[in-house]
Amino acid sequence: MPAPARLGEIVAALGGELRGDGEVAISRLAPLESADAGSLSFLANPRYAAQLATTLAAAVIVAPAFADAAAARGAAVVSPEPYLYFARLTQWWAARQRPAAAAGVHPSAVIEPGARVHPSASIGPLVVIGAGAEIAAGAVIGAHGIVGAGAMVGEGTRLHPRVTLADHCRIGARGILHSGAVIGADGFGFAPSQGRWEKIEQLGAVRIGDDVEIGANTCIDRGALDDTLIEDGVKLDNLIQVGHNVRIGAYTAIAGCVGIAGSARIGRHCTVGGAAIILGHLEVVDHVHISAGTAVTRSIRKPGTYSGLFPFDDNASWEKNAATLRQLYSLRDRLRALERRQAQQP
Amino acid sequence: MPAPARLGEIVAALGGELRGDGEVAISRLAPLESADAGSLSFLANPRYAAQLATTLAAAVIVAPAFADAAAARGAAVVSPEPYLYFARLTQWWAARQRPAAAAGVHPSAVIEPGARVHPSASIGPLVVIGAGAEIAAGAVIGAHGIVGAGAMVGEGTRLHPRVTLADHCRIGARGILHSGAVIGADGFGFAPSQGRWEKIEQLGAVRIGDDVEIGANTCIDRGALDDTLIEDGVKLDNLIQVGHNVRIGAYTAIAGCVGIAGSARIGRHCTVGGAAIILGHLEVVDHVHISAGTAVTRSIRKPGTYSGLFPFDDNASWEKNAATLRQLYSLRDRLRALERRQAQQP
Amino acid sequence: MPAPARLGEIVAALGGELRGDGEVAISRLAPLESADAGSLSFLANPRYAAQLATTLAAAVIVAPAFADAAAARGAAVVSPEPYLYFARLTQWWAARQRPAAAAGVHPSAVIEPGARVHPSASIGPLVVIGAGAEIAAGAVIGAHGIVGAGAMVGEGTRLHPRVTLADHCRIGARGILHSGAVIGADGFGFAPSQGRWEKIEQLGAVRIGDDVEIGANTCIDRGALDDTLIEDGVKLDNLIQVGHNVRIGAYTAIAGCVGIAGSARIGRHCTVGGAAIILGHLEVVDHVHISAGTAVTRSIRKPGTYSGLFPFDDNASWEKNAATLRQLYSLRDRLRALERRQAQQP
Repeated sequence: MPAPARLGEIVAALGGELRGDGEVAISRLAPLESADAGSLSFLANPRYAAQLATTLAAAVIVAPAFADAAAARGAAVVSPEPYLYFARLTQWWAARQRPAAAAGVHPSAVIEPGARVHPSASIGPLVVIGAGAEIAAGAVIGAHGIVGAGAMVGEGTRLHPRVTLADHCRIGARGILHSGAVIGADGFGFAPSQGRWEKIEQLGAVRIGDDVEIGANTCIDRGALDDTLIEDGVKLDNLIQVGHNVRIGAYTAIAGCVGIAGSARIGRHCTVGGAAIILGHLEVVDHVHISAGTAVTRSIRKPGTYSGLFPFDDNASWEKNAATLRQLYSLRDRLRALERRQAQQP
Repeated sequence: MPAPARLGEIVAALGGELRGDGEVAISRLAPLESADAGSLSFLANPRYAAQLATTLAAAVIVAPAFADAAAARGAAVVSPEPYLYFARLTQWWAARQRPAAAAGVHPSAVIEPGARVHPSASIGPLVVIGAGAEIAAGAVIGAHGIVGAGAMVGEGTRLHPRVTLADHCRIGARGILHSGAVIGADGFGFAPSQGRWEKIEQLGAVRIGDDVEIGANTCIDRGALDDTLIEDGVKLDNLIQVGHNVRIGAYTAIAGCVGIAGSARIGRHCTVGGAAIILGHLEVVDHVHISAGTAVTRSIRKPGTYSGLFPFDDNASWEKNAATLRQLYSLRDRLRALERRQAQQP
Repeated sequence: MPAPARLGEIVAALGGELRGDGEVAISRLAPLESADAGSLSFLANPRYAAQLATTLAAAVIVAPAFADAAAARGAAVVSPEPYLYFARLTQWWAARQRPAAAAGVHPSAVIEPGARVHPSASIGPLVVIGAGAEIAAGAVIGAHGIVGAGAMVGEGTRLHPRVTLADHCRIGARGILHSGAVIGADGFGFAPSQGRWEKIEQLGAVRIGDDVEIGANTCIDRGALDDTLIEDGVKLDNLIQVGHNVRIGAYTAIAGCVGIAGSARIGRHCTVGGAAIILGHLEVVDHVHISAGTAVTRSIRKPGTYSGLFPFDDNASWEKNAATLRQLYSLRDRLRALERRQAQQP
């Protein structure tokens, strides 16, 4: 546990308008409802404004509209975008309390001949760096990382422990890859041949832009002929499957357990909810939002929000409705017949 | 293959009433239908009672109601709960045939300064234990395990090969973590900022109680500010995603491929079927059972069984019904119109 | 980048009828639309025949029906099955440009006493081979691989970096396992006991046939008493969960994110689309095709294609239809009432 920060020190680093006592000691960041007298908290959503009156926080980050209410109860930091301020505060806080990775190569790491590791990079215990791979300045390869032959890790990018970046795959600057992620396994490609499957070797790789974050145990397959592409600023959560030759546009964010089949193209600034699936060879344009659990089975050519999820219910109700659903088409026919007969009546 | 056990030896260890010859040699455990003359089998579900007459098993574990039928055909063990007896028997059997992990640290492991490893713990090949981590008595860290800085592994807990327990995460006593599990990767948190995503550093950790089992390649994210909590006795299958700040109540069991979004609270003694999803910030009370494939999109405040799954069908039938489903709302309107007209008729 | 191949060299190796100049230099394989003057391309689907006229490819692999059209624009290889020819070409190409793994054991690997490693096998950096394990001729165990005690890897099988093959599990010849795959973690088995779960130790293993490919981070659990079985020629994509005692028939192919619950039996020559789920203890016969996202909740006894997926829509339409769906059963009753009244009318 590091020493507390003074509120004034935070405002000096991150900006915002200080209201009240800058000497207030901040020991932790906390939500309004679980904050204590050593906590700095924030009000991002006006829906929770009532909590301002009851929180025990030492200080609260608020938008200008709540500045007076916050200052009336204690110290406050006023910022036009409190949630963004809070995000930056977490970064400042983490940098303060987490030790930086030491530059240099751990003696237990295996560096193959021809690999180039920048002296300011940090290579952890039991890492394997393949022949011809390149690790740029300030990159961190956590324990047990594997960087394949000819692969590239950009400046300041961090591979948490146990990440696999396969041969010839590349990631840009300031990326974050979480444990268990597998970048560059073979895409799933086979030609049928007399009831068997003949493997199509996957000759492409994976290319990942700058500022990309990839979650734990997420897989991004290498391309069949061309590369699979993840553009700048994409954020992928855990346990996502990205098939070969998919292209994900810049600043798109995708929640956990999503599956994206081969050659799908997803636009920029999209969001995809958890456990959604996107079939192969589809195109989704920019600014599309797909709800959790939705199966996208055809291209989406218009920005907007799309959904498709069976509503859940108590089991008995669901059973009755689901059984009826299997006869929905015939219900429609019966309805039509009734309409016709009624139309013939006087 | 170890030497066979005598049936009497098993009853001496696990209890139950022995009927017939305790000298019978048991070479393996087997279901009734594939049992042979060296097998010990069990009848847990009365539905399979007819198999008592045909099984080749040397002996059968049965409930009192089947004691005479079982004894009439050969040796038997009578127990009020045959399935529970069988579970304990598998434990006894496994302990007998699997060599215990040797205490001590494998010479290839990397133990960072300040880590505390109990002398009775077993640290396998190529394990990495971070600074300040603590491994309690009798714990087993399998090959390639990673225990982060400041993390804690409780008494007798076993990490199978290749488990990642990230910095400052804790697991209690008698736990089992399977290969590829990632405990404590960052939760998925970002503040939007001018079309980009600003990372919210995840400052919490993961706290796991006693007697918890976590499946292969399952991910449990660390909390944003507070910790993600898994209470005592929880059982998680493979490839499950548990988002940041989720709380899973004691003795809840969750099947494979389930996704639980951030800040969801799941009660005690619940079960969740495979590939279900639970959206974020919901609450599910104790004793709720969620069927496989169900998407829980709002809180569940009443114990019971809940479902929501599109019924599958042959493709042609499904296509017709699914197409009609997209006009369901207008079908309802047409039905309403018919009802109104009919109500006006004499 | 290796030296270009001559087209004639390819035809000499793989067969087919050469039309045009065999001296043409081939630097890469590419789809028709992104091919350049150094590319060899292929026309597998007649739907894309128009691209023959516009592609920049140096040469094209075509079926006899397109031989003249292809030859009219440049060099061509004529084969009755262009897609299969292309698949074999990718294999030839990969063999040519990827260095073979060097036979022998990397000095950083840990080989437990009693393990048998064939001298022609390749054991990569930081691999762990357990006591009594057997690695056959020509097998390749990539960096960080774990082969458990008593496990077996067949001739020519390749484990990409970071694969876990647990104790006593076996894979046959010519298999490919991708990074993060976990073969042989415990199946999910517990006996309920007074509100808690008593573990059923999983005493079986996993047996995998020849020519099987298993994707990144896919899990196949070991059997409870008998073994989990994957027959010859099965192809599994990434992030698939295969429960204990499942049996997957020969030459069945399963796409990413699929979940198969315990003791399900899937026939031969089946295909399963991405993110489908198959419940436990079901039987699916040979030659069944299950669409993506489908939940198979009962046995399938007839070959054919089966589907079950909520159609997605713009969010507003979906909301209306989904809400109505929860009253579907009562709609059916109202329809029935209307029909009855109408039947009574003159």
